[in-house]
Amino acid sequence: MEGLLRCSANYVPLTPTSFLERAASVYGDKTSIIYGDTRYTWRQTHERCLKLASALTRLKISRGDIVAAMAPNVPALYELHFAVPMAGATLSALNVSLDEHALTIILNRLQPKIIFVDSEFAHLVSKVINDKNNTHPQENHHDHKPLLVTIHAVSPDRQTQCDVEVREYEQTLATGESDFQAVIPADECDPISVNFTSGSTGMPKAVAYSHRAAYLNSLGLILRYEMGKLPVFLWTVDMFRCNGWCFVWAMAALGGINVCIRNVSAKIIFESIQLHKVTHFCGKPTILNMIAESPPADQKPLPSAVDVIIAGPFPTTCILKRVQELGFNIIHGYGMTEALGPALIGPWRSSQHHHHDRDDADANDDHNLKCREGLHNITLEAADVKDPTTMRSVPSDGETIGELMLQGNTLMAGYLGDLEATQEAFSGGWFRTGDVGVRHTDGCIEMKDRARDVIVFGKEVISTLDIEAVLLSHPKVEEAAVVAQNDVVAGQIPCAYVKLKEGRCSNAEEIVEFCTERLQKAAMVPKSVCFGDLPMNSTGKVQKSVLRERANAMGKLCP
Amino acid sequence: MEGLLRCSANYVPLTPTSFLERAASVYGDKTSIIYGDTRYTWRQTHERCLKLASALTRLKISRGDIVAAMAPNVPALYELHFAVPMAGATLSALNVSLDEHALTIILNRLQPKIIFVDSEFAHLVSKVINDKNNTHPQENHHDHKPLLVTIHAVSPDRQTQCDVEVREYEQTLATGESDFQAVIPADECDPISVNFTSGSTGMPKAVAYSHRAAYLNSLGLILRYEMGKLPVFLWTVDMFRCNGWCFVWAMAALGGINVCIRNVSAKIIFESIQLHKVTHFCGKPTILNMIAESPPADQKPLPSAVDVIIAGPFPTTCILKRVQELGFNIIHGYGMTEALGPALIGPWRSSQHHHHDRDDADANDDHNLKCREGLHNITLEAADVKDPTTMRSVPSDGETIGELMLQGNTLMAGYLGDLEATQEAFSGGWFRTGDVGVRHTDGCIEMKDRARDVIVFGKEVISTLDIEAVLLSHPKVEEAAVVAQNDVVAGQIPCAYVKLKEGRCSNAEEIVEFCTERLQKAAMVPKSVCFGDLPMNSTGKVQKSVLRERANAMGKLCP
Repeated sequence: MEGLLRCSANYVPLTPTSFLERAASVYGDKTSIIYGDTRYTWRQTHERCLKLASALTRLKISRGDIVAAMAPNVPALYELHFAVPMAGATLSALNVSLDEHALTIILNRLQPKIIFVDSEFAHLVSKVINDKNNTHPQENHHDHKPLLVTIHAVSPDRQTQCDVEVREYEQTLATGESDFQAVIPADECDPISVNFTSGSTGMPKAVAYSHRAAYLNSLGLILRYEMGKLPVFLWTVDMFRCNGWCFVWAMAALGGINVCIRNVSAKIIFESIQLHKVTHFCGKPTILNMIAESPPADQKPLPSAVDVIIAGPFPTTCILKRVQELGFNIIHGYGMTEALGPALIGPWRSSQHHHHDRDDADANDDHNLKCREGLHNITLEAADVKDPTTMRSVPSDGETIGELMLQGNTLMAGYLGDLEATQEAFSGGWFRTGDVGVRHTDGCIEMKDRARDVIVFGKEVISTLDIEAVLLSHPKVEEAAVVAQNDVVAGQIPCAYVKLKEGRCSNAEEIVEFCTERLQKAAMVPKSVCFGDLPMNSTGKVQKSVLRERANAMGKLCP
Repeated sequence: MEGLLRCSANYVPLTPTSFLERAASVYGDKTSIIYGDTRYTWRQTHERCLKLASALTRLKISRGDIVAAMAPNVPALYELHFAVPMAGATLSALNVSLDEHALTIILNRLQPKIIFVDSEFAHLVSKVINDKNNTHPQENHHDHKPLLVTIHAVSPDRQTQCDVEVREYEQTLATGESDFQAVIPADECDPISVNFTSGSTGMPKAVAYSHRAAYLNSLGLILRYEMGKLPVFLWTVDMFRCNGWCFVWAMAALGGINVCIRNVSAKIIFESIQLHKVTHFCGKPTILNMIAESPPADQKPLPSAVDVIIAGPFPTTCILKRVQELGFNIIHGYGMTEALGPALIGPWRSSQHHHHDRDDADANDDHNLKCREGLHNITLEAADVKDPTTMRSVPSDGETIGELMLQGNTLMAGYLGDLEATQEAFSGGWFRTGDVGVRHTDGCIEMKDRARDVIVFGKEVISTLDIEAVLLSHPKVEEAAVVAQNDVVAGQIPCAYVKLKEGRCSNAEEIVEFCTERLQKAAMVPKSVCFGDLPMNSTGKVQKSVLRERANAMGKLCP
């Protein structure tokens, strides 16, 4: 076809920093950020980000460099999500709950030129930087110590402990020019950020996001959650988790209000909703527990409906009911770091106690759930349940378990520094989630379990989540986890770990009987039941690997 | 950065045909199309498009080929928007009001391998194909006659007049396989469609859209118009206009309902709204006149609010009031073929009678308008008012007139077969719209006129639209157009053409006096006023070039 042309007029690399430039011109006078007494407009946020990008450039930050940040959800971390890519560099927002050991390994991996650190964590970060050369000399032969920029002042006594160069955030920003020309990515597939997985299966992995993926996923999120009417977003999800599930950028696309908070509590959630008319917030399902179990004195009536987007294990019926009664509208998603956050809506699991939820819901809600089930984001190309060996789709029978695989532009660019792991994750041209599920006759996907957690009983694949759902429906059970225990005859059998509600007593026989009555197949009934606290990792997930080791170290019946 | 990988798992060319594949899996059982008694679901539409793409492939259609279509807004034309690109080819939907001469030129330009034609236009198309070799032998030496596929049956006597091969749409579709593997564009910047401009400045230009532009513009539209809740879209805008402003694809992204109609009338609009609970429709502002002036018997109460998106000259206050009273919510956009349809919201013009509109509107509406004014679509990178020579932005003073220029991924790939015109349109790295406007102190852009229509009085640039707005506010004036008349002293002076309302009388002196009282500057007052019908082109636009010729062929005062 002749006569066509690709030039700067009709081809611009996709990058979410463009949302901020548009917000400054379209929503210039509207509020961008509220944090305590601090308020900015979109014009101000744009100007501050340009100045910060300019300041970074003066500090010799350029394409290919990594800038790290360790901070709670403060305005500075929001600004860094734009300023760092506008300087051409890649941002890595670090989990603030990392310990010294994990932080050392991660900083060695990233080799950031600058680390922005909230004063609360400045001591930890400067200690790690100072110790690094001594503890890991072999990894650091080419390493220069990064520049540290503190957000808020560091107290003088702590500052002396640190022999790296330290600057202050606002002072650094002030050195930049507001007429700075933002750097446009050379290729829209270049990385804009590096995010770490929660590390439930070992060391956190460094997941790189491209500008293209971040741009498209932001638009996909807005479309998915229908966030069209100038939303007010309360920052309950950590910005260091998938860049706040990409909502950092989506909010600039919408010109909405970011309500930043340092710490999350039910009290702060209710207060922020009343004060700022919050319309949306997100997080792990534990945020619902926090709300449901908060003292009535902290609970305030909602001025209007609030959408809560959660991703992770489905909350219990009881919790769900309580938060819904308080006026919250719960939207449940399935996601992961490699998919830039929530990628599928649902899964509303079809086990007994969740079916029960749906029967309880009014007709309208139920319709809503049904039409959303199995829905993948518009910017994700495909979601399928496949046999991981043959790569064939499983039959749509609601029974045959396969691995959930994803394909599309809103998946990671790869694991930074680990091409082998990237190739493995993408082998066969699909991203292998490591989660298993089924496809129902109506085409909907229902997630079942982590691939490594399923129990292979003879030739049958059993989902531990199906068994846990029954255990959790027992009136005395607070928490439950089921893992595979090796067995000479069946290969693997289910072993249950149960934490009872305070003051309740039970025994293995009672639990086994309860399960026998409710589970469809005898193979699903736990062959052993152990009582006590469940081992959790730092993000609140049960450490099933620990339980599996325990189960296989002991006999069939617990003491 | 090492470890990253671009592969089919995380990089898929952007194309709006992917929306249909997703709609089939996510909205499979929901209605896709309603046309009289015909109804399809998204699963069926997907299957039909796959079969049609397969049939096209069997007819030797492949990458780089053009398939043309001439039909009103029937389901077949909707399906072709997916099936043709899914076969790897490019669709050109033709204006059904083209005459034999224009159609001949356009078909010579396109060289389509297949033409799909609604039986209403089969006679015209087959005649043009048969006559073509005789009338333009020099242009057709390498030309094979295209295959004709009729939508609905062609009556036997007409069919005999045609010596090209003729097939029928449903039969052709039936020869395809539903398990066809849709062709993915080799490059997302390859053309998905060719659309013709309305040709108000001469011959229509062939504007090519890329898959990437169509994909992004569809998402931009949805976000702009907040069409999240399974919309019901009435097809009042022609699908051959910018692919129905890209709504053909946007509707698949949303899983909404396409209500197809052959002809547009107020009666059909009201009936469709009542019958199908239409939520959105679009078109030129004349559609509002049609509604406002329809007999009360045709007007039915709206079951709920209906959004009407219009692009073109702003409707008069009186029309606007009437349609708003009937319950329609009017959204006004600025767009053009080269920008894939509406690209900016507004412009709500700030001339007297439009200011009046805004004073009338309630506070809430006013807020809404204000926050949207000057808003460009999220997928458009930038909109600016520039001096076309220096390429400098005009000052934000609301006075200095410059050319509106656009930049972004949702602009055309170029003019097919006319690289020179493409280069000219994109010169300086911006798309030059040929429209002039100003930028206000608050950053908002206000459109003023077509660049070629402005009057250069001495050194002052005068917008003819500003003068027309005053003329239209005269109680006796039905239509008005102002053009530049050459003048030895001033360079150019305004000359007004006015059509009076039926039964009304006036004279030049009365009109000039009315203008003198209301226009800010003496230079803006028309120096001559002519009465009578205004010359219109086929799309209902006043032919100002004709009026300019007339104005310069006569003396200063009309007979």
